[in-house]
Amino acid sequence: MLDGFFKPKAVAVVGASREEGKVGFSITMNLIRGRFPGSIYPVNPKAAEVLGMKCYPDVKDLPDDADLAVLVIPPKACLPTLEACAAKGIRHAIVISAGFKEVGGEGADLEKALRARVQELGIRVVGPNCLGIIDTKSRLNATFAAGMPPVGEIGFFSQSGALCTAIMDWAIGNNVGFSKFISLGNKMDTSEADFIEALASDPETRVIIGYIEGVENGQRFMEVARAASRLKPLIIVKSGRTAAGARAASSHTGTLAGSDRAFTAAFRQSGVLRAESIEELFDFARAFAYQPLPAGPNICIVTNAGGPGIIAADAVEQSLVKMARLSPPTVERLRAALPPTAGLYNPVDVIGDAKEDRYKAALDAVAADPDVNCILALSTPQAMTDYDKYAEAVGQAAKQSGKPFFSAFMGEASLPKAREILRSHGIPQYPYPEPAIKTFEAMVKYRNWLDSAPAAPRQFPADRERVATMFQEARRQGRNQLGEREAREVIAAYGFRLPQNVLTRTVDEAVATATRIGFPVALKIVSPDILHKTDVGGVRLNLQDADAVAEGFGAIDASVRRFFPSAVIQGIAVQEMVAGGKEVILGMTRDPSFGPLLMFGLGGIYVEVLKDVAFRVAPIGPDEAEAMIREIRSFPLLRGVRGEKPSDMAAMVEALERLSQLCTDFPEILELDVNPLLVKPEGSGAVAIDARLALAG
Amino acid sequence: MLDGFFKPKAVAVVGASREEGKVGFSITMNLIRGRFPGSIYPVNPKAAEVLGMKCYPDVKDLPDDADLAVLVIPPKACLPTLEACAAKGIRHAIVISAGFKEVGGEGADLEKALRARVQELGIRVVGPNCLGIIDTKSRLNATFAAGMPPVGEIGFFSQSGALCTAIMDWAIGNNVGFSKFISLGNKMDTSEADFIEALASDPETRVIIGYIEGVENGQRFMEVARAASRLKPLIIVKSGRTAAGARAASSHTGTLAGSDRAFTAAFRQSGVLRAESIEELFDFARAFAYQPLPAGPNICIVTNAGGPGIIAADAVEQSLVKMARLSPPTVERLRAALPPTAGLYNPVDVIGDAKEDRYKAALDAVAADPDVNCILALSTPQAMTDYDKYAEAVGQAAKQSGKPFFSAFMGEASLPKAREILRSHGIPQYPYPEPAIKTFEAMVKYRNWLDSAPAAPRQFPADRERVATMFQEARRQGRNQLGEREAREVIAAYGFRLPQNVLTRTVDEAVATATRIGFPVALKIVSPDILHKTDVGGVRLNLQDADAVAEGFGAIDASVRRFFPSAVIQGIAVQEMVAGGKEVILGMTRDPSFGPLLMFGLGGIYVEVLKDVAFRVAPIGPDEAEAMIREIRSFPLLRGVRGEKPSDMAAMVEALERLSQLCTDFPEILELDVNPLLVKPEGSGAVAIDARLALAG
Repeated sequence: MLDGFFKPKAVAVVGASREEGKVGFSITMNLIRGRFPGSIYPVNPKAAEVLGMKCYPDVKDLPDDADLAVLVIPPKACLPTLEACAAKGIRHAIVISAGFKEVGGEGADLEKALRARVQELGIRVVGPNCLGIIDTKSRLNATFAAGMPPVGEIGFFSQSGALCTAIMDWAIGNNVGFSKFISLGNKMDTSEADFIEALASDPETRVIIGYIEGVENGQRFMEVARAASRLKPLIIVKSGRTAAGARAASSHTGTLAGSDRAFTAAFRQSGVLRAESIEELFDFARAFAYQPLPAGPNICIVTNAGGPGIIAADAVEQSLVKMARLSPPTVERLRAALPPTAGLYNPVDVIGDAKEDRYKAALDAVAADPDVNCILALSTPQAMTDYDKYAEAVGQAAKQSGKPFFSAFMGEASLPKAREILRSHGIPQYPYPEPAIKTFEAMVKYRNWLDSAPAAPRQFPADRERVATMFQEARRQGRNQLGEREAREVIAAYGFRLPQNVLTRTVDEAVATATRIGFPVALKIVSPDILHKTDVGGVRLNLQDADAVAEGFGAIDASVRRFFPSAVIQGIAVQEMVAGGKEVILGMTRDPSFGPLLMFGLGGIYVEVLKDVAFRVAPIGPDEAEAMIREIRSFPLLRGVRGEKPSDMAAMVEALERLSQLCTDFPEILELDVNPLLVKPEGSGAVAIDARLALAG
Repeated sequence: MLDGFFKPKAVAVVGASREEGKVGFSITMNLIRGRFPGSIYPVNPKAAEVLGMKCYPDVKDLPDDADLAVLVIPPKACLPTLEACAAKGIRHAIVISAGFKEVGGEGADLEKALRARVQELGIRVVGPNCLGIIDTKSRLNATFAAGMPPVGEIGFFSQSGALCTAIMDWAIGNNVGFSKFISLGNKMDTSEADFIEALASDPETRVIIGYIEGVENGQRFMEVARAASRLKPLIIVKSGRTAAGARAASSHTGTLAGSDRAFTAAFRQSGVLRAESIEELFDFARAFAYQPLPAGPNICIVTNAGGPGIIAADAVEQSLVKMARLSPPTVERLRAALPPTAGLYNPVDVIGDAKEDRYKAALDAVAADPDVNCILALSTPQAMTDYDKYAEAVGQAAKQSGKPFFSAFMGEASLPKAREILRSHGIPQYPYPEPAIKTFEAMVKYRNWLDSAPAAPRQFPADRERVATMFQEARRQGRNQLGEREAREVIAAYGFRLPQNVLTRTVDEAVATATRIGFPVALKIVSPDILHKTDVGGVRLNLQDADAVAEGFGAIDASVRRFFPSAVIQGIAVQEMVAGGKEVILGMTRDPSFGPLLMFGLGGIYVEVLKDVAFRVAPIGPDEAEAMIREIRSFPLLRGVRGEKPSDMAAMVEALERLSQLCTDFPEILELDVNPLLVKPEGSGAVAIDARLALAG
């Protein structure tokens, strides 16, 4: 449990200082200024007193109730200090000190040793190299930042300490309440996953927001995020998009998958709302913190001017949000309340000369309409507009309706007081309509996530032993790359259908085999000596009947013997000709954070030129597989154009799930392409024509 | 000349009122409060005095120096009043009054009559149904809005009066200076094009910004915008994206072209910077108004924290902006000025404990680097950060460098004074790095526009007479849709190469023709009685030699006679088989605002499913045609993949220009598809296989 970080009885500041400007001073001062109700114990061998409080020479001298230690001491002193803390029964420590992994070399070694020792001791550590932790509710400010945000219900974690300071400054300036601030620092012992888990079960937190640059254990992150996002919104800014993995990739999938695509997939699969910027992070956070969740995607816009209404409707059109259709009774109610030139349909235009009573009447009318899930109160400062009274009207209408309300009051000079009024009513405010719509879209996405219940991955029968043996054999031979035949055999063991291919030795055998497989078939010479089969007349394609097979068998035999009299011939393979399907590509590459990353795309130029592919982190169930297939831009080609039958969706879904199962069973698979998978029309299945597979080195 | 709207000697307010709350009162009051230095003449038959000024009973009684009239009277009174104005020698009038086109019916009739009369009188009118006009420099506030923005160099026009009020309020609150405000209203006599022209030649305006919902004469708009954007930045928000033309389209081009795509094309072709939101409009406007244009696309980011630096670099990656590569001397200079743990490469990280001197040293060093075209001063409020001093450092560094500087100081509580300091230095400020990058990207786009000099459209020889005759003939027959043969003939007259097609009557003739055209050829029965040629055995494709042609001729003849003994047979056509190219589609549809809108895309599913097409407004020259071709996502397929030869770019460019010329010569063409145009490898030209053409009804 991480509660010890937030609700300590007594905090020891190891390295507390009397010298202003020092971090050890700031932390002690912040604890005092924040009016932390528990005990504060400065620890410093060189002082008897710090900021009027008794100072302890050493951790071992601390009173027994100390249960959280904040370390502001040189990096090398941290390990013995944490040992002393553990001996004292302190189970939680925040290591502010820098000079560890982030400086490389000796610092990295120090951190490694510290991590190992901390795990032995069973003590939980935040940091090192962090800003500290704030819990507004328990009045704990164990950071060296200036000030403390107001109490509220937004919990925030950040991999960047500087961003913490920026956000705290913003929160104070905008009077936005926070429950907890966690600066993760180097994430030596605790990471975002731990705090997502803690904030998810924290009754003081209603919305979790975070800033990360990367995650170490992606699968754990997803598991924790998936659980948390079922309980409360989890909004994350992930930066470092361009820092894609530098590993040279040998597969299509490896080339197309950047680390950012893995994050996008992982976020989507675990219900994380991704904010595209810090601005969006706040826009979203305020809406979720102050407003109820919408029941559906339909917004109604109430405006006092046409132009901004059009701008808002445009923004709606480009989003998942829908324009609500007002019911006839609502329109009648609006007609009664508004002047004849008003706009009675969404966007509802109360006209520029509207006073607050008319604005309020329109807000009330649309909020009462059952088809309206959210209301955007839009306004411009016209001659008769009193923004303060408008703001009060919006607040009252929102209170009565129980539906989410947003405001976009445009301008600046006439806004300061209205802003305060809107804030007091918990109405999220946006300077323009567009960010309001974008924010409501995030709420709609979250609503959809809560309403979704993707089916669990299915387990298909597979010959796991066979694959394990093949991998061992390849490794024994010092190979990481599997041959085409081997790769095909691996996916066949996991239930992929391959073209039938039977070795025959006589004409009669070949004809019988072809008849059994079904025409057309191909014949191919099988000889370890012959690399380029076609060049020696060793291949016949598209043979339509028994006569053609008989003739072809003889011709191949004669031709090969003529071109290559010394060749050892094992026989002639009869192979099923697969025709009449669409080529798709399934692939997998191992992402450094999230592990097996699955890819789906249409084959050929769609993948190579248009890069029209979708990604998911394995394992996936049937719903996720289908969503992945539907996500590509060229999906209409699979649904069928110009009267074609649709391609076999069930077969593609199953193929993706089988691939997912294979990659989950064998973490040693580094990259795998099934390319092409020939998908036939609905009900007719799919056949894997070729595959490539590389094992981790 | 529209100067009379901005620099009048004396303003008459027709409908001036003594009653507070009335528009006629607000306008008179605004003229007084704005301290308009010329004379103000209230006109109202019911008052002898308004706001302490002599009131005139009628326009005819006005003193002779009145040169601008502002009308705030009932709609029906406007026509006689403007006549009286004209008689008085007043050449400019602002009609504030509403109740015209925007209410439909009688109002629309009134406006039509007013427009005609105004044109006869030669008087220029802004409005009706508008907020009025402001010129901050001549202290003219002829609007009924509250307040007046500070003097500055941004000129603004808007189709929405409410947006004018919002922007004015914003400008006052943020202390952003404007030169002129024009509320266009119904655009009865003057439109955005007129004011773009006026602001372009206005020495008091450095940046033109505007909000429009549509334009009437798109070609004039483009002409004026193209000229203006060469002189100063022209930034426009266009809303009403979803109000696409409702006309049912029968061609591919018509289906894919929405009115928004026409605006996007027109803006691009005329150097208009399109802002995606009101927020961007301001972000862009401030940067262009206060900062010099960059010499190139390279930005350098100076930050006091890693996280925000990564966020900024991510935003750069997703834009046209490039990260500057600092030269070795710059890196050395930074190394000397910064502590050992600092980041010496772009983004330059001066580390959290930096005071303003270190921040300034880094800014100076990177600004002096010749590869750096723009500097983003990024910062978070850390313990040692003094934002006010940082702001001063940025201002000084900017002044010394002469390069564009942007700031993104994150936070809120510690910002108010720093904001003022940055503003006093003319440094555009953004709350986060992303909008700063987006804005710099707009500057880079504008720089590229200024540096570009697209070649003029070429004129190709064409048989214009032939086409004119065909159109007349079709019209005479009451047809708007041309048959395939006719459509092909039209484009052939404009120099499109078509497959050769010769009617033959005997086997010998057919063989001789095929030999001349070159093999392979196709044979097709020609008979007015036979619609489905293939069904009666009337088509043979891909005939490789003389024997095959002779055999085919006989077979077609026999088959047709057997199936359809009564058919009148004109002969058998020998047609060139065109093979070995890529199918593209060229098209044109007539946009209600901009006229002939050209389309280019790859044929088949690329157009139909992926909607991967590019648009331009005709006429276009070779550079614009090539840019259009390169714009589609699937362009790599035309450049050649997997070792293919590239498709013939010169032939595609010429085809687009020929299409452009055809549509410009014949405004009666409503829609035209050349589909497919088969483009062969470089140097081998392109052949139009089929075409469809519809004339305006």
